[in-house]
Amino acid sequence: MKSLLLSLLFAATGLARAAAPAASPIYGVTLPEGYRQWQFIAPAHETAPLDELRVVVGNPVAMAAIEKNQLPFPDGTVLVKLAWKHVQSAESPPAYVPGKATTVQVMVKDSRKYAATGGWGFGRFIDGKPADEAQHQTCWGCHQALVKNHDFVFTRLAP
Amino acid sequence: MKSLLLSLLFAATGLARAAAPAASPIYGVTLPEGYRQWQFIAPAHETAPLDELRVVVGNPVAMAAIEKNQLPFPDGTVLVKLAWKHVQSAESPPAYVPGKATTVQVMVKDSRKYAATGGWGFGRFIDGKPADEAQHQTCWGCHQALVKNHDFVFTRLAP
Repeated sequence: MKSLLLSLLFAATGLARAAAPAASPIYGVTLPEGYRQWQFIAPAHETAPLDELRVVVGNPVAMAAIEKNQLPFPDGTVLVKLAWKHVQSAESPPAYVPGKATTVQVMVKDSRKYAATGGWGFGRFIDGKPADEAQHQTCWGCHQALVKNHDFVFTRLAP
Repeated sequence: MKSLLLSLLFAATGLARAAAPAASPIYGVTLPEGYRQWQFIAPAHETAPLDELRVVVGNPVAMAAIEKNQLPFPDGTVLVKLAWKHVQSAESPPAYVPGKATTVQVMVKDSRKYAATGGWGFGRFIDGKPADEAQHQTCWGCHQALVKNHDFVFTRLAP
């Protein structure tokens, strides 16, 4: 009886763990709910070796800031970059279209929690699961080096 | 006095004409309001000679149909394709990002009004103004020839 109770307890703990969204190493960033419905900011094409098509979307806080040309982005801003393999269209060969989804990458602005990284927390997800710590160690260095003058965000609103 | 009144009349007519959204030749399709806020369906990269990045968005009728895998698309569906020049990023050279906006292209489903063209009306806009009739004569032939098995729509939901 005791072992049955323990088994049930472990099973319940496991379920609770499965239900909680997985958080990124270092930053503890999760995939935000409903981001696929968010407004798009811009597409991009990442050439080899990644060879991807991408779309960056923003939550309402992000979009309001972008409309006002507000920099730095306010706390509560969430940006999500969706990426897919860059695949030639069978129906219209001059076009390249999204193939398999590759990564979903998230930036969350919290100027106190992430004070050491420009106010941004980062998350990189593959098939809904966070990538490893080594991958998360690369985010900040690149954003810091290349787009300091745009609050460490590469994407601009597509005109 | 008479000529002043006539001048005013002409001026008022001109204003009314300017205020009404310009409609595409052949189809009478206009740019829908608020489409920049619509949900994105997929990005695309159109290689030379057009050399463009694109994003297709759908109105709520379109997105509901796509969620249900509903084909043909129901009346009231509106799809909008935004396009920009495919420009190398100065900040991250492996990436290509949106340059100058080129065209905005619209498909409107109205199975009775557009019965002769698969139920679709087409509009191609440059700087907010409809392109000429010759350009609009090319839409249907290509959609009809290449994507008959997807209700004449090239774009699929990016996974």
